[in-house]
Amino acid sequence: MKPEETIDFHIKYTWQNIARMYNDLASGYGSTMAMGYVLLNIDIENGTPSTALGPKMGMEATSLSRILKNMEAKDLICRKKNPADGRSVLVFLTDFGKEKREDAKKAVIDFNEAVFSQIPEQKLAIFFEVIQKVNELISNRKIYS
Amino acid sequence: MKPEETIDFHIKYTWQNIARMYNDLASGYGSTMAMGYVLLNIDIENGTPSTALGPKMGMEATSLSRILKNMEAKDLICRKKNPADGRSVLVFLTDFGKEKREDAKKAVIDFNEAVFSQIPEQKLAIFFEVIQKVNELISNRKIYS
Repeated sequence: MKPEETIDFHIKYTWQNIARMYNDLASGYGSTMAMGYVLLNIDIENGTPSTALGPKMGMEATSLSRILKNMEAKDLICRKKNPADGRSVLVFLTDFGKEKREDAKKAVIDFNEAVFSQIPEQKLAIFFEVIQKVNELISNRKIYS
Repeated sequence: MKPEETIDFHIKYTWQNIARMYNDLASGYGSTMAMGYVLLNIDIENGTPSTALGPKMGMEATSLSRILKNMEAKDLICRKKNPADGRSVLVFLTDFGKEKREDAKKAVIDFNEAVFSQIPEQKLAIFFEVIQKVNELISNRKIYS
């Protein structure tokens, strides 16, 4: 079985291509894909606990903390003590962060609209069905038992 | 457009699930998915130039160099000067590395066989067609022009 014949190779390869595309685009704004994802994952009204962002983004705490520091320096976010829980910290978007969030949102929508306009709905439905099945197989934990 | 409605969300999410599955499995061998990929990407007979491994794996040079150091300490690989080019280094598998390469290969084959046995061939063909189209759209660079 050659790598190109495996499904994991194609999913990894495609994710790396998408990530490179988003990073290229973000670099034009002096930003990164990861920062864009943070902007999109923060609740505009109520802020988001910093501890909730890592799991939401599938990112380790140390990487995330470096990114948040960077974003604070760029005045994209601010951190405030959680009034409901003094030990936790809420991350809020600044006005500049809200503005940049719109750019990140547009990047995601433009990409998806390009995909959805080029690929027939029926084929996309099967794509999503297959990818869901792959995730089910993984979460059932029967493959290596 | 919610994240769950985007194609990039599903590809990212699935890749993260696959990576977690492979890392869980590899950790049982005191290893990691990245080490498994290195084992699979080294030419058994002729070795592989260390500079060729990064691009093959979509990995940055600094991360790769840390992994290779680790793998050398575990006696999975050894590095030798390239006889054809004194400035470059070839990475070879040790006998232990060759043995562990078989485990990595089996992990990939078992996962793919599970997927291929559970999903009808026709749906898989459409899945690969869609994912190829997504990659074409990205490499055409027309989305954000």
